[in-house]
Amino acid sequence: MTMDNIAAVLYGPREIRIENRDVPQRRPGDVLVRVLAVGVCGSDVHYYRHAQIGDTRIDKPIILGHEASGVVVEADDGGQLAVGQRVSIEPHRPCGHCRECIAGRYNMCRTVEFLAHPPTDGALAQIIAVPAAFCFPVSDSVSDDEAALVEPLAVGLWAATRTRITAGDRVLVVGAGPIGLLAAQVANAVGATTVIVVDVSTPRINKASTYPGVNGTLLGDVGYSELGEFDVVIECSGAPGALRDAASALAPRGRIAAVGIGRNPLSELDILLIQSRELELYGVYRYAGIYDRAIALLEAGRVDVASLVTHRFPLAQTDEAMSIGETDPDAIKAIIYPQR
Amino acid sequence: MTMDNIAAVLYGPREIRIENRDVPQRRPGDVLVRVLAVGVCGSDVHYYRHAQIGDTRIDKPIILGHEASGVVVEADDGGQLAVGQRVSIEPHRPCGHCRECIAGRYNMCRTVEFLAHPPTDGALAQIIAVPAAFCFPVSDSVSDDEAALVEPLAVGLWAATRTRITAGDRVLVVGAGPIGLLAAQVANAVGATTVIVVDVSTPRINKASTYPGVNGTLLGDVGYSELGEFDVVIECSGAPGALRDAASALAPRGRIAAVGIGRNPLSELDILLIQSRELELYGVYRYAGIYDRAIALLEAGRVDVASLVTHRFPLAQTDEAMSIGETDPDAIKAIIYPQR
Amino acid sequence: MTMDNIAAVLYGPREIRIENRDVPQRRPGDVLVRVLAVGVCGSDVHYYRHAQIGDTRIDKPIILGHEASGVVVEADDGGQLAVGQRVSIEPHRPCGHCRECIAGRYNMCRTVEFLAHPPTDGALAQIIAVPAAFCFPVSDSVSDDEAALVEPLAVGLWAATRTRITAGDRVLVVGAGPIGLLAAQVANAVGATTVIVVDVSTPRINKASTYPGVNGTLLGDVGYSELGEFDVVIECSGAPGALRDAASALAPRGRIAAVGIGRNPLSELDILLIQSRELELYGVYRYAGIYDRAIALLEAGRVDVASLVTHRFPLAQTDEAMSIGETDPDAIKAIIYPQR
Amino acid sequence: MTMDNIAAVLYGPREIRIENRDVPQRRPGDVLVRVLAVGVCGSDVHYYRHAQIGDTRIDKPIILGHEASGVVVEADDGGQLAVGQRVSIEPHRPCGHCRECIAGRYNMCRTVEFLAHPPTDGALAQIIAVPAAFCFPVSDSVSDDEAALVEPLAVGLWAATRTRITAGDRVLVVGAGPIGLLAAQVANAVGATTVIVVDVSTPRINKASTYPGVNGTLLGDVGYSELGEFDVVIECSGAPGALRDAASALAPRGRIAAVGIGRNPLSELDILLIQSRELELYGVYRYAGIYDRAIALLEAGRVDVASLVTHRFPLAQTDEAMSIGETDPDAIKAIIYPQR
Repeated sequence: MTMDNIAAVLYGPREIRIENRDVPQRRPGDVLVRVLAVGVCGSDVHYYRHAQIGDTRIDKPIILGHEASGVVVEADDGGQLAVGQRVSIEPHRPCGHCRECIAGRYNMCRTVEFLAHPPTDGALAQIIAVPAAFCFPVSDSVSDDEAALVEPLAVGLWAATRTRITAGDRVLVVGAGPIGLLAAQVANAVGATTVIVVDVSTPRINKASTYPGVNGTLLGDVGYSELGEFDVVIECSGAPGALRDAASALAPRGRIAAVGIGRNPLSELDILLIQSRELELYGVYRYAGIYDRAIALLEAGRVDVASLVTHRFPLAQTDEAMSIGETDPDAIKAIIYPQR
Repeated sequence: MTMDNIAAVLYGPREIRIENRDVPQRRPGDVLVRVLAVGVCGSDVHYYRHAQIGDTRIDKPIILGHEASGVVVEADDGGQLAVGQRVSIEPHRPCGHCRECIAGRYNMCRTVEFLAHPPTDGALAQIIAVPAAFCFPVSDSVSDDEAALVEPLAVGLWAATRTRITAGDRVLVVGAGPIGLLAAQVANAVGATTVIVVDVSTPRINKASTYPGVNGTLLGDVGYSELGEFDVVIECSGAPGALRDAASALAPRGRIAAVGIGRNPLSELDILLIQSRELELYGVYRYAGIYDRAIALLEAGRVDVASLVTHRFPLAQTDEAMSIGETDPDAIKAIIYPQR
Repeated sequence: MTMDNIAAVLYGPREIRIENRDVPQRRPGDVLVRVLAVGVCGSDVHYYRHAQIGDTRIDKPIILGHEASGVVVEADDGGQLAVGQRVSIEPHRPCGHCRECIAGRYNMCRTVEFLAHPPTDGALAQIIAVPAAFCFPVSDSVSDDEAALVEPLAVGLWAATRTRITAGDRVLVVGAGPIGLLAAQVANAVGATTVIVVDVSTPRINKASTYPGVNGTLLGDVGYSELGEFDVVIECSGAPGALRDAASALAPRGRIAAVGIGRNPLSELDILLIQSRELELYGVYRYAGIYDRAIALLEAGRVDVASLVTHRFPLAQTDEAMSIGETDPDAIKAIIYPQR
Repeated sequence: MTMDNIAAVLYGPREIRIENRDVPQRRPGDVLVRVLAVGVCGSDVHYYRHAQIGDTRIDKPIILGHEASGVVVEADDGGQLAVGQRVSIEPHRPCGHCRECIAGRYNMCRTVEFLAHPPTDGALAQIIAVPAAFCFPVSDSVSDDEAALVEPLAVGLWAATRTRITAGDRVLVVGAGPIGLLAAQVANAVGATTVIVVDVSTPRINKASTYPGVNGTLLGDVGYSELGEFDVVIECSGAPGALRDAASALAPRGRIAAVGIGRNPLSELDILLIQSRELELYGVYRYAGIYDRAIALLEAGRVDVASLVTHRFPLAQTDEAMSIGETDPDAIKAIIYPQR
């Protein structure tokens, strides 16, 4: 098959080139997917600006984008997926045979490839090759944008899963970026009856308040000590001191999900408080085994991911998409369309 | 304090007498509650008709009713509850010091008293004495009827809790009586995205279909094998063969809650199926430690218990309330008002 | 590589032929293993006698044996396993990409191949091809026999895992065949402080009594009601009524593992008891993700599998190995050595 | 009943007076216990030296000691305990009716009384009144010393319970004081197959190495990075940086129990590591609902608490008992006998 494959390639800080790339080779079990929509994540933006995150440097040109939807254009005969199927793409490609993979903890696989995690190319291309097992069919009721945004939704669902949010829980979400807004909606969808989202930004807090069952509260107007008592904290901000301060609002046996990544890997916690209330802290890293459940929530209308989208760009304007957060304070989520 | 205390007392099969009883003595930690509403449960009706359930016989006159709400009229100074507080009454009075109670499994306490479980008198009286710790304040938005119906709601929530229903689960509820209708709503409230309720009665199935996220299906029109594949079965009918047949619709590692009580304690199960799919069967007996969560779901509008109420009676018409199911096929839940 | 590959092949009931087979082709990720020891399981014996189990018929000649150890003789360069490595072989070959496999529940994979489960050939051959990911290195302290018997040990460990046996649990094991004897030892190894094994056979009960922390009791001398109260029942006999009767010995919230396979797939349970004590029943089917832990228990000396071995045969005497249980009432486990 | 009740009372730093106190009044459900042995805990020593721990000051004279065994000398007729019964005393007296107590999390009860936690008097007296429900009968095979040391054993068991240690786990215990030594033994008893204890003290490490299945390693001779990879860390030292450093030795999804109390309540953790490996941190505060299981382990010989005892004193030498750690570097656990 001869196909063009235009891609947006990052060569260095703020240096995106639109290029034609070879159509990737399918590995065993792969399908080829024509990419329809790609959400821009904070990690994409960070790579775009700095060509590195922490110790992970971009040593060779890389295609960004890991929140993606598409349509299958080439597949094994008799496989799980048919050509023409619209799918949401889980960006994992685990090794499949290490101890972690065998146990279903493939997000812990030490050799996992993940779209747009260097040196693995991401989804900002017209055609990508991905494992069929990580492509999830979506119904016609799910838009291309929504199918792409299953990815951050899965992060929010994983945080709720790790902390076992259930009926009647009181949940505090710290940080009202895309992950926080989705985690708050998931908390509501799985039975939390108090869901408070805090942030320091008024537009974000206003956005949070638009979701059913979610109450947005501007931090600074109130402090953690005034927010009441919670069963679960989902920390999505990565702000210095946020984990420690939010933990102080937890009831006995309260659970904390550490989702947000801070500039400083080290963070101070009040261990005496963690002990005296028997708190539990859970690291959250991507997700595993729940993409189908995230899609089910979406298809059932329990969460609204479409409303996160504030900006849309064709592939040629990837630069603008990566920069929009610097110019528009109301920006939440930009979508890039590789076929436009 | 001198108070009248009119009660509906069962002396034998279908023999209710309306009598004035002494106001009960408070035991340590008790409050006195003026009872505002009492739901009629299938077990009340069974005692009313037969003066026994299984081996549990009514040897002396007993007051029925264990689904109750009320208002506190006498309490210890400085206690958890103030006079005037409207409450939903959890009908347990555990011993508080056995192995089960200490572990929080007080529904397994071997000497627990439970309202209207012989020989313990129930709530069909103007005044009852109950442990303050088992009276849960309700907000003004919760009606007396609703506060009473927290009891069957708690059964449904306990079934969902025991089977760990979560985001994206596919749930089959067998039996569309009050417990089944509430279990289905709870399943939806905690994230199940497919909830199918089956029954052999058309009016009940129609009722089931009125709840958001719940699909009612007439058994007989379709069989279990046509219903699809489920993660959880909540068996609320007690019908012969229901557990075995419903289990066949479960996916690998599927969970079954046995809630409905059949005429025959023995039931045949396909153990080979349970093994090959690694199914899990959970006995459900009342509930423990979740009344506050049931109330939270109610106050947050996640479940609708009010719509179950089809008939209302003053205390003097307790006979009619107990018999309504025999005359009105659309009857779901009768409420009796001890103060009227 | 040219290698002989002598195998014991079952052509029909009690019809084993010793043949030279082609050395099997390695699939991607496979290694070739020279088989050193193979335990004879009850399922092997059943196939040997009847050429079927339930609805699973042997339509073409098949090699039996799924409890196997060996040494790697061919492997991918740079893979997880080196040539010369002695291994215990987990007999699973899951598809690796279905919902169950991705979630780590590969024993529930609908297209899993399992050694000696028709039509998949088993381990009674000199050379077999198996996935490297399912070959677990064993230390020199583990004999070939022991490495083979990790398989039934893993069943026992899985039963303990499913029922969450922990410190201070009181465990009743029904059936003192190899699985029961190993389940009892595992129960002891994970902290159960009362472990009672019942059987109707005196030699088996005597055997059970030889293990530290395990008490063997002849059923018939005593009944279930005299055994005391248990937190967990591991049912390994498949005897009619065993599940129902053993369940009656459980404490509130007691857990039952259904391991033994009966002649009749249907079994009667006392649902009223399961409800009133909130019992939990777990189907057990092989195991998943615990072979390394079974080996760790073995290497640490926490369980004794070697003592199960009562008979040893070269490959040419596979017939005798399959028949020994019919002639020797003391037979527990026969080992066949494909290289002898 | 007229009884003497000699007690060791702390009036201020290092100021113990031996006094005759009134025999305490039994509250409902209480028994009177003649105290036979009391272990000296680090918290007792800290109160002895400083008359405070953190913000908890001793405002009035207090009796120390919360690791206690005794014999019942007065009990309700028909109660759970008979006069003459030897018991191990769980030092909790929960309120019994708050949300935490009802749920079985009574160690989180906000009004719980705990022996020797100011202002509640402890067990260094001839007679104490304690709830019958928190007195656990011990068999004749358990010595008075051992029955007292169920208390620190329960802490170790709770740490293992919170972190779900199971078959084949690799466990690192930081700190080889009494709690660490017991946690290590418990880890072994519940199936951990690698148990490494680290400390900076050679005598303590030598002690650790005497227990079956436990390997003691002198920190400084090796660092955390050389210890291998673990599934669970039990941090019992409270040393600065210990939590952070030990966490770096954890495998993906590894669990950490924070048991040791440091001088500084704040502790720095590597959140990025916690996220990328999805580690889990659990606060441990005393224990709840496991005293019977700790006793079962002891009675079954799975743990050795007697070997911790290095010094013994009559009540009159409470001063010496509290000071022994300052003079004898080999001191691990002192026992005081109130009847001598």
